[in-house]
Amino acid sequence: MTKPLIGLYPGTFDPITLGHLDIIKRAVKLCDELVIGVAKHSGKDPLFTLEERIELVRASIAETEEGARATVRVEPFEGLLIHYAESLNCNLIIRGLRAVSDFEYEFQMVGMNSAMNDDIETVFLMADARYQSIASRLVKEIAKLGGSFEHFVPDAVAEPLKAKLTA
Amino acid sequence: MTKPLIGLYPGTFDPITLGHLDIIKRAVKLCDELVIGVAKHSGKDPLFTLEERIELVRASIAETEEGARATVRVEPFEGLLIHYAESLNCNLIIRGLRAVSDFEYEFQMVGMNSAMNDDIETVFLMADARYQSIASRLVKEIAKLGGSFEHFVPDAVAEPLKAKLTA
Amino acid sequence: MTKPLIGLYPGTFDPITLGHLDIIKRAVKLCDELVIGVAKHSGKDPLFTLEERIELVRASIAETEEGARATVRVEPFEGLLIHYAESLNCNLIIRGLRAVSDFEYEFQMVGMNSAMNDDIETVFLMADARYQSIASRLVKEIAKLGGSFEHFVPDAVAEPLKAKLTA
Amino acid sequence: MTKPLIGLYPGTFDPITLGHLDIIKRAVKLCDELVIGVAKHSGKDPLFTLEERIELVRASIAETEEGARATVRVEPFEGLLIHYAESLNCNLIIRGLRAVSDFEYEFQMVGMNSAMNDDIETVFLMADARYQSIASRLVKEIAKLGGSFEHFVPDAVAEPLKAKLTA
Amino acid sequence: MTKPLIGLYPGTFDPITLGHLDIIKRAVKLCDELVIGVAKHSGKDPLFTLEERIELVRASIAETEEGARATVRVEPFEGLLIHYAESLNCNLIIRGLRAVSDFEYEFQMVGMNSAMNDDIETVFLMADARYQSIASRLVKEIAKLGGSFEHFVPDAVAEPLKAKLTA
Amino acid sequence: MTKPLIGLYPGTFDPITLGHLDIIKRAVKLCDELVIGVAKHSGKDPLFTLEERIELVRASIAETEEGARATVRVEPFEGLLIHYAESLNCNLIIRGLRAVSDFEYEFQMVGMNSAMNDDIETVFLMADARYQSIASRLVKEIAKLGGSFEHFVPDAVAEPLKAKLTA
Repeated sequence: MTKPLIGLYPGTFDPITLGHLDIIKRAVKLCDELVIGVAKHSGKDPLFTLEERIELVRASIAETEEGARATVRVEPFEGLLIHYAESLNCNLIIRGLRAVSDFEYEFQMVGMNSAMNDDIETVFLMADARYQSIASRLVKEIAKLGGSFEHFVPDAVAEPLKAKLTA
Repeated sequence: MTKPLIGLYPGTFDPITLGHLDIIKRAVKLCDELVIGVAKHSGKDPLFTLEERIELVRASIAETEEGARATVRVEPFEGLLIHYAESLNCNLIIRGLRAVSDFEYEFQMVGMNSAMNDDIETVFLMADARYQSIASRLVKEIAKLGGSFEHFVPDAVAEPLKAKLTA
Repeated sequence: MTKPLIGLYPGTFDPITLGHLDIIKRAVKLCDELVIGVAKHSGKDPLFTLEERIELVRASIAETEEGARATVRVEPFEGLLIHYAESLNCNLIIRGLRAVSDFEYEFQMVGMNSAMNDDIETVFLMADARYQSIASRLVKEIAKLGGSFEHFVPDAVAEPLKAKLTA
Repeated sequence: MTKPLIGLYPGTFDPITLGHLDIIKRAVKLCDELVIGVAKHSGKDPLFTLEERIELVRASIAETEEGARATVRVEPFEGLLIHYAESLNCNLIIRGLRAVSDFEYEFQMVGMNSAMNDDIETVFLMADARYQSIASRLVKEIAKLGGSFEHFVPDAVAEPLKAKLTA
Repeated sequence: MTKPLIGLYPGTFDPITLGHLDIIKRAVKLCDELVIGVAKHSGKDPLFTLEERIELVRASIAETEEGARATVRVEPFEGLLIHYAESLNCNLIIRGLRAVSDFEYEFQMVGMNSAMNDDIETVFLMADARYQSIASRLVKEIAKLGGSFEHFVPDAVAEPLKAKLTA
Repeated sequence: MTKPLIGLYPGTFDPITLGHLDIIKRAVKLCDELVIGVAKHSGKDPLFTLEERIELVRASIAETEEGARATVRVEPFEGLLIHYAESLNCNLIIRGLRAVSDFEYEFQMVGMNSAMNDDIETVFLMADARYQSIASRLVKEIAKLGGSFEHFVPDAVAEPLKAKLTA
């Protein structure tokens, strides 16, 4: 009998985009259980509160997955990623792989995480080409400036994002 | 009869450098009309005011181009780049292509812009090798610390930059 | 009165793919005249003859463009690219910009070409994300091994490619 | 009840290196079954025959894994990777992620494979830093020139590699 | 008689890591005199004061080198790097070369520095693979969040870092 | 008394270019003795014989350096680079650092070389921006096709290259 595969997909999700959602759809095929860990603190002030960000992730995955989705949990976390992964008995950390500029950061994170706990594997998944250029930061910038951000976010996010920006 | 080619070269130009100028000299060969769009807001506080930045771009292109330059306009803009490009009936957005670290950002911008308006093409030009390493941010840092920044900026910028920093 | 913009899009086109076609559709918006230069010699033996490659480019652009296409010519060339560009009175060379591994080669070509003739500008265009991963070499490999290559080539190429491989 | 996770780790393994072995040790933690697919044809003439390459992979994994290894199979394959993966009912293809120059190729392969079959996911694993610089091609070059290649290959490979080169 | 080789290894060292130390061990083999220049101002508030950072560099190099180390000096500096290098009669500036994302910045710095003074050479050294993923910024983040940072810093840094964070 | 610094700058030099020469000019400032090692075998058939390549390197460095040059030797080598470096009592191997595509190869070479002998340091130097795009392979291609290759090679190489190609 093998240990169940518990995956952790961490992020700030401020807000969740179609790029994140594409990675989630791929990740659910690889794990028995997938925890989407929404980081409490991002480097800078998030636009949405932690509760809102969790809620938007939940609403977005509800609208796109059926059945298989039962194994997905969305949870807040704070502190060190590797500690949180250990507390979940997680065996794999899932990262979306984008083009060049991410690479160094990912390389550093994997190197430093594996020095701390080499039993937790980091796996990289590549989002569909159509979604690789989407970044939460740019989505918010576009939305703030009145651009049509609907191409970039799940339906469940469109209204709350508009509301947040006109608040 | 074909539509005139209207190019937009956007930037903060705080201040314009020899790298920008090299791209402008190349861009004027590709368009019927070139708009140099000086962004009102950059991510951080600019050293020069919007008016000063526009003035320095104008003075710099005056000193280097003759004749052909009649088709160049320097204008302020704010808001979303793609909206500004649409308001100009612009067909192409011009970007200077530098080495690695820019690539992801450019890739994201092109991807997201083309999702919003696929009729406006982004073209990348490569500055002469001698100018590829010049970054406005470093020029200002060098100037602030008393280094010889004259290698990096048009003649029209040298005095104003010195004056600004000793002000 | 300005000089007409004559663009050159060079390649081996063995065979033309949807990635090439996407660049061509973008390039025709930027030039008064576009020459698609099909290189006689590629590094290795091409699968299709020069005549076949030219024919497939012609058939592929016929099927996708209307009207504007009148300004496109498909021609063979051999020898040095910059000489061919000069013989066409070409002002710009068009290249599709792909991710990382191309960059050094492009950087070298632009650097060396501009040392030989700095009046001919190289412009880079980015293909739609869906087409960026397509490479002629892989298309042929997939086709040879019986994979479904139809996702990657224009309709006009599908039959000839199948025929060539079962010949 | 979920479908078992069948992973495919494809390669030429001419011969297997400590870098490959490190990826295999990581991959066995992620799958219910791992197939190491040894490609019959590599681009160029392999140093070891297909049978020898398979044997060396088997011997190498025997020496380093206990227990868990029961689920690993080593098999030859030829033809298109995605067809072979389909014939195995494989859900994931495993690739070792190395630094920059691999990236474009991997990006192309994932893009083209997912156009052919989007149900098979490609996951990237990063080898331990100590093994990331090892390439079979360089190992063979070093061995041929009398260098101490033992740092780079499993113990089971050292003797056969020496024997092959003095044959 | 040749001029002595005076190398400058500049940084913020907030705090010194095993990655820095590995570069220092390599650099001392290349120079007659090595100055480790500790920058007074980093972009953001350092965790350790300038005096503490100098002290930690000194303590760290004491614990790992014998004999040869006599030629190493640790000094504060502020202002423009190239001016500081000139004041030292330095002939070479030493930089640790890491993966991709550093490259553009290094390229810019070398280009701009050589425009200001082309007699001072910049040389890049590559740290041992085990240390390439270590970044001071991440070490501090890990330490703050209670992770086991001891893998990443010299012994002399472990206690002061713990003390600083619980202060 | 310190050991003299003996540097090795290895290459095929088929033929030496202005890019190589720029690195040599930088390297002579860093060593007490510089050996330019001309590799007997390159991957493919060289255009110039080993003797010719050595002669062209000698003639090129004669024309550009005075005085300091006494410490430079040009020598053929074959076999493993690290063995050759050991036979010279070399302490450093010098490499020109170019943009992206080289990086992986250099990373592999440094990693594998340091596993074989960690006392020989590899240092990377960056050529002047004007010379970074020059590649011997492209120079030969340009020369063969009748392009003006004189911008890319030392004066001493221009005639022999022309002669070789019209032979």
